[in-house]
Amino acid sequence: MQLHNFNSGPSILPQEVLEQAAASIHNFNHTGLSILEIGHRTSWFVDVVTEAQQTIKRLMGLGDDYEVLFLQGGATMQFMQVPMNLLDENGLAAICDNGVWGNKAVKEASIFGPVKVVSDTSNQKHTYLNKQLEIPANATYLHITTNNTVEGTQWHQYPQTNALLVGDMSSDIFCRPTAFEKFDLIYAGAQKNMGAAGVTIVVVKKEILGKVNRKIPAILDYQKHIEAGSLLNTPPVFSIYVSLLTLRWIEQQGGLVEMGKRNQEKANLLYHTIDSTPTFYCPIAVEDRSIMNAVFFLTNPEHEAPFLELCKKHGMIGVKGYRTVGGIRVSMYNALPLSSVQAFCDLMKQFAASHA
Amino acid sequence: MQLHNFNSGPSILPQEVLEQAAASIHNFNHTGLSILEIGHRTSWFVDVVTEAQQTIKRLMGLGDDYEVLFLQGGATMQFMQVPMNLLDENGLAAICDNGVWGNKAVKEASIFGPVKVVSDTSNQKHTYLNKQLEIPANATYLHITTNNTVEGTQWHQYPQTNALLVGDMSSDIFCRPTAFEKFDLIYAGAQKNMGAAGVTIVVVKKEILGKVNRKIPAILDYQKHIEAGSLLNTPPVFSIYVSLLTLRWIEQQGGLVEMGKRNQEKANLLYHTIDSTPTFYCPIAVEDRSIMNAVFFLTNPEHEAPFLELCKKHGMIGVKGYRTVGGIRVSMYNALPLSSVQAFCDLMKQFAASHA
Repeated sequence: MQLHNFNSGPSILPQEVLEQAAASIHNFNHTGLSILEIGHRTSWFVDVVTEAQQTIKRLMGLGDDYEVLFLQGGATMQFMQVPMNLLDENGLAAICDNGVWGNKAVKEASIFGPVKVVSDTSNQKHTYLNKQLEIPANATYLHITTNNTVEGTQWHQYPQTNALLVGDMSSDIFCRPTAFEKFDLIYAGAQKNMGAAGVTIVVVKKEILGKVNRKIPAILDYQKHIEAGSLLNTPPVFSIYVSLLTLRWIEQQGGLVEMGKRNQEKANLLYHTIDSTPTFYCPIAVEDRSIMNAVFFLTNPEHEAPFLELCKKHGMIGVKGYRTVGGIRVSMYNALPLSSVQAFCDLMKQFAASHA
Repeated sequence: MQLHNFNSGPSILPQEVLEQAAASIHNFNHTGLSILEIGHRTSWFVDVVTEAQQTIKRLMGLGDDYEVLFLQGGATMQFMQVPMNLLDENGLAAICDNGVWGNKAVKEASIFGPVKVVSDTSNQKHTYLNKQLEIPANATYLHITTNNTVEGTQWHQYPQTNALLVGDMSSDIFCRPTAFEKFDLIYAGAQKNMGAAGVTIVVVKKEILGKVNRKIPAILDYQKHIEAGSLLNTPPVFSIYVSLLTLRWIEQQGGLVEMGKRNQEKANLLYHTIDSTPTFYCPIAVEDRSIMNAVFFLTNPEHEAPFLELCKKHGMIGVKGYRTVGGIRVSMYNALPLSSVQAFCDLMKQFAASHA
């Protein structure tokens, strides 16, 4: 049976990337050694890091005022590492709480300095984005989650602010051309659009660092990582390599323009099917719907279990909604082919016909 | 040409582990999905974590008063995470500075509370271990680096202390049967004896946690990781799986008794060759020599470059000494076969004969 991988992350990767990753475990780049056995300070691996950094900057269209780091610990580490490096008692973090991840960012930042929640959409179960933000004039930075993986919303235009702009792009990085240059710090776990679990990229404007009044442990200090060329200590070698393979794949396919075209097409097909099939409904404000993660429900809640059962029977992986949200969630990351969304939509219609 | 991988880490892995790891990238455990594409909360992956935790406890002979965590950031993260969780202004960290890594542990702990360096062997270039430690009665914990990867020393008997005992076992974990039960907290980056880079194990006695007076960010809080079954957020899935494969291999080969036998045999052969060949000398106190990393020199410093050139020509990888130490370093982790050490010793003798 053909499987269709709608996992929310870790998630589907391009077949070419998987093949190259597996080959590198046998013999990395004709070295005769496995990628798992090479030293991280060899020129072989320094070349991997350098190419990955350059590719990220090229895809983002950013210049030398930004640095690219490969860190560990996922977005959850960044929830504390960002304020540890940028926020102290003299500053203020303005944070949008539009769901599970933004909420965690609020909690962790509170350990390091004053926080103001400038948007809290929980009153409507996070089914929309509040774009009328009142950002205090003394805010050090504004933090947004550019795509809310759990709730199914996505910023399609970024908010204007005089504060620094920080973006958690974990679940929509490189999904389309976007205004990366508006951000002073971007972070993203790799395991959705950019590779396998185990590495987190941080893209940071150098000039914003070194302003807080606090001793920062070396491993959590962006400046120390920059000085060490992202090789402060043993990095997650294999995960960085899989990210490089995925970044190369993005460029080979036509870059962010092509990714955006494909992702929009997949999302259009799925949302059209939901909206035109009364058996299903999507509560997310149309203008805020995510092209990465579609969150929707069965109109009759009793139909949810049999629909999920049908999905399972047809090899549709990872379509059960997040545990606190329920319903259905279909993740459509870069590597997911249109044919998988088509197969899923056909199944929705088949289910609707028999459960009208 | 056959390669001999003496890398200090990331380092050689068993061939069976590499083959299974590569196969899992194509099809993990007959799921039809790649290990890089499966959700970390699936029963498939929870089984991986559980088996890895159980195997570690079995190899260590530890009971339910200990928890096993799979974290990220390497030993460098633990240099700050240990004191963040165990040390505050009311406590005292007693730390042995026997080289590069112990020294970093001292620096990071100092951010969180009082530190006393109870051993500093820099006066003799860290070529021995001082075992006469004066540990203050009020010390919260004593921290030792059980094997000094850079300097080539290893604790063969652990120090006695009334304080908690914390061990950085990054470079000698599972190299032989040892008194794991003497420790209250053990940590180790996986990339030497226990797998690939990208995951760090922490084995901690539960009762020692929760005593410090500080707000700990979730991702750095051992207790939060324990509560979440080591799945607080997306873990480094593939690296954990490679660790499981390596742990299984250790047990299948005969466990720590067999590892110890093999490692001792390799170390005996190499040190005997050094000591009996005047072209080479090892400055490390005989009783403190590491069975994992042998650090030694050419008696005539001018012979170093040609010897390294000869090594390169014969496929001997990773034998150049650490940049601050110089000389030769031969790492002989669990997966390194005796035949590689034999080939290296033959080359030493060949070189000695032509450079007497």
